[in-house]
Amino acid sequence: MKAVVVQQGETEPTVVEIDEPTPDPGEALLRTLRVGIDGTDHEVIEGNHGGFPDGDDYQVLGHEAVAVVADANGTDLNEGQLVVPTVRRPREEGNEYFERGEPDMAPDGQYVERGIVGAHGYMAEYFTSAPRYLVPVPDAFAESGFLVEPISNTEKALEHAHATRSAFEWTPETGLVLGNGPLGLLTLAMLEGGRTDFSRTYCLGRRDRPDPTIDIIERLGATYVDSRETPVSVISEVHEPMDFVYEATGYAKHAFETVHALRSNGVGALLGIPEDWTFEIDGGALHRELVLQNKALFGSVNSNVRHYEAAIDSLSAFPDWLVDDLVTGVHEPAAAPAAFETNDETIKTVVEFDTV
Amino acid sequence: MKAVVVQQGETEPTVVEIDEPTPDPGEALLRTLRVGIDGTDHEVIEGNHGGFPDGDDYQVLGHEAVAVVADANGTDLNEGQLVVPTVRRPREEGNEYFERGEPDMAPDGQYVERGIVGAHGYMAEYFTSAPRYLVPVPDAFAESGFLVEPISNTEKALEHAHATRSAFEWTPETGLVLGNGPLGLLTLAMLEGGRTDFSRTYCLGRRDRPDPTIDIIERLGATYVDSRETPVSVISEVHEPMDFVYEATGYAKHAFETVHALRSNGVGALLGIPEDWTFEIDGGALHRELVLQNKALFGSVNSNVRHYEAAIDSLSAFPDWLVDDLVTGVHEPAAAPAAFETNDETIKTVVEFDTV
Repeated sequence: MKAVVVQQGETEPTVVEIDEPTPDPGEALLRTLRVGIDGTDHEVIEGNHGGFPDGDDYQVLGHEAVAVVADANGTDLNEGQLVVPTVRRPREEGNEYFERGEPDMAPDGQYVERGIVGAHGYMAEYFTSAPRYLVPVPDAFAESGFLVEPISNTEKALEHAHATRSAFEWTPETGLVLGNGPLGLLTLAMLEGGRTDFSRTYCLGRRDRPDPTIDIIERLGATYVDSRETPVSVISEVHEPMDFVYEATGYAKHAFETVHALRSNGVGALLGIPEDWTFEIDGGALHRELVLQNKALFGSVNSNVRHYEAAIDSLSAFPDWLVDDLVTGVHEPAAAPAAFETNDETIKTVVEFDTV
Repeated sequence: MKAVVVQQGETEPTVVEIDEPTPDPGEALLRTLRVGIDGTDHEVIEGNHGGFPDGDDYQVLGHEAVAVVADANGTDLNEGQLVVPTVRRPREEGNEYFERGEPDMAPDGQYVERGIVGAHGYMAEYFTSAPRYLVPVPDAFAESGFLVEPISNTEKALEHAHATRSAFEWTPETGLVLGNGPLGLLTLAMLEGGRTDFSRTYCLGRRDRPDPTIDIIERLGATYVDSRETPVSVISEVHEPMDFVYEATGYAKHAFETVHALRSNGVGALLGIPEDWTFEIDGGALHRELVLQNKALFGSVNSNVRHYEAAIDSLSAFPDWLVDDLVTGVHEPAAAPAAFETNDETIKTVVEFDTV
C-alpha cells in the first residue's frame, strides 16, 4: 500500500510502498480516508520533534486522520463505521494515565505518539488500532473528520482554562487567538459561537490583505490584529484587555507578552512548542502583574477521548462554509509531497486516500 | 488613642495620638488586641506599595489583626466576640466583586486596602468596621488570630492551585515553598498536615545554621534547601520535581525558575510582589516546558471570607509549638517601631494593644 513517510537522513516526505498492516488480536484494520497536515508534521520531517519507531529507518507521517473500519477483526466495532484515531499510545501496558483515560497528562517518556514520536502515523492506505483509541464520528465527517484531532487540543485547552478560573465567578467576554494558522482559525471559530460565548474575539497574524485567513477571521466576526502594527504587548491598550488568550504561534515571546494582554483574572493557554531562545524580559513587572491581577498561564498538549467527543460537537456546530474555506488543498497520495508545500494561499491541506 | 502610623515624607513608623474613631451607623467599634507585621507593611512604610487615605497626611499601618467587639452599635455582633477583619473595602458601594464575596478578585482601582492602600489599618487601640468585613474567630485566638489573614492568602492560593489542576486527576505529593519568612513557614505548616496531604515538603531560604527558621522547617518535617547551594533552577534534579511550588520571596527570577522546579502537570503559585527587573531567560525552553509538560503558573493576591474561614481551621490544626516559635517579638504600642526592626532571630513580630 502507499504510505507517506519521512526516511532516515531526509527532510522531505516521500511516498513509498509498504506492506498493508495485519491487525493483532484485539485490533481493527482501518481504511484511511483523509489525513491533515499541521506544523508538527513539518517539525517531524525536519527532525526537530519526535523520533522514529524503534528499529525502523522511516516513519509513516500523519496524526490527524479520519478512517473507516475495514475489518473489525473480532472487536466490537462495526465495519463501515467512521472513526477518528487518537494520537498517544502507552509505552508499556498498565500505564496509569492511559488506564484512567488521561493519556494527554502522561509525562514525557511514558508514551509514543503516532506519526510524531516512536510510532507510525496514519498517512497510509490502512492502519491498525485497538478500539479504545478510536472515537466514532458521524457519517457526515468523512471529509472533515480529520479536524477532530486539532479541535480536540483546543477543547482540552478551553477545559483547562475554565478549570484554572473555577475558584471564582469568571465570565469571559474577550478572547484573543495568537496565530492565524489552521489551529488558530479553528480555535477562533470555537470562541465565536462555542460553549464559551465570547462577545468579542481577536486573531493575531502577520499577513497583508487580501489574505484568505483574514477573510476567515472577519467572516467569523472576529477582529484581525496585524502583529507588525500591533504587537501582543500593546493589544490590551490598542484594543482591550483579554479574558482569554490562546497561543498557537510557537513564538516564545508571545508566552510572556500574553500576561500583559490579559485582563485581571484572565488566563493564557500556551500550545506552541518553540525551540530554545534566550531573550530579555521585565521579569519583575511580569511577576508582579501575575500576582496583583490574579492572572494565570498554563501549557497544554495533546487531548483525550473526552476532548475528541467535545470536538465532534464543535465541528458539527461550525458554519457550513468554514471547512470549505479552511481546506485549501486536497492531494492524492501519489502527490502527497505537494501537500506539504505552502504558499500565501495555503491554509490547511490534506492527503485523501479514499472516500466513503 | 495610640496609633502606629507612617507620616507623609517619612519612611519610619511613628506612634501618634489620634482621636478614637466613632462607628458610623451599621459599623461596630473594635478594640484591637494584636496586629502582625509583614513584608507589605515594610513596603508601605518605604512608600513602594499602597498610598495614603484621601485627604490624610498619614496612614495607620497594619492589616493582620485580631480584635474584640467593643461596641456592637446596633449591628448583630456580640460585644466581647473575637473577630479578624478582612483587608479590602470597595471604593464604591455596589461593587460586583464585593457583592458576591470575591473582593480578592476585584481589579486594581476598585478597592482600597486597610493599612496598605487608601485606607487606615488596624494598628491602633480601636478601629471601626461593618460586620460583613469581620470574621468571628474562636476565643482561643486572642493571641494567634492575627495569623488568620496571612494564612487566608495561602488558603486562596491552594484553592486556586487545585482548581487549576481540577480537569484531571491530580494527587500532589511534593511541595516546595520558596521563602522562609513568616508566610513561607505558615504555608509550609499548611502543606505539612493540611487538607492537601503532601508526602514530602521543602522550604527554600538563604540562612546559615543555627537559624530559628531552619529549626521550624525541620521540626515541621520538611527539608531545608539553601538557595546559595541549591538554586531553584536545579531543585528538581538535586531533590525531586515538585507537584506544587509556592513563591513567597518576591524575587522575580523565582517566578520563572519555578517552571523547571515543577513535575509534569505541576502548578506554581506566585504571591510575591517584586519591583521591575529586566533579566535574560531562556523563554523558548520555558514556554516549551510549560506546554509539553502541562505545567501551570498563576498569581494570587488577597483572599475572601471563605479563605478566612478555612484559615481558622488551618490555624486550629497547627501543632501547639508553632505559633510560639514563629512569634519572636511582642511589642507594646509605645515601642511599636522596634517591632519593625529585624535581625537574624526575627521571624514574626506583633504589636499588642490589649489582651482579653
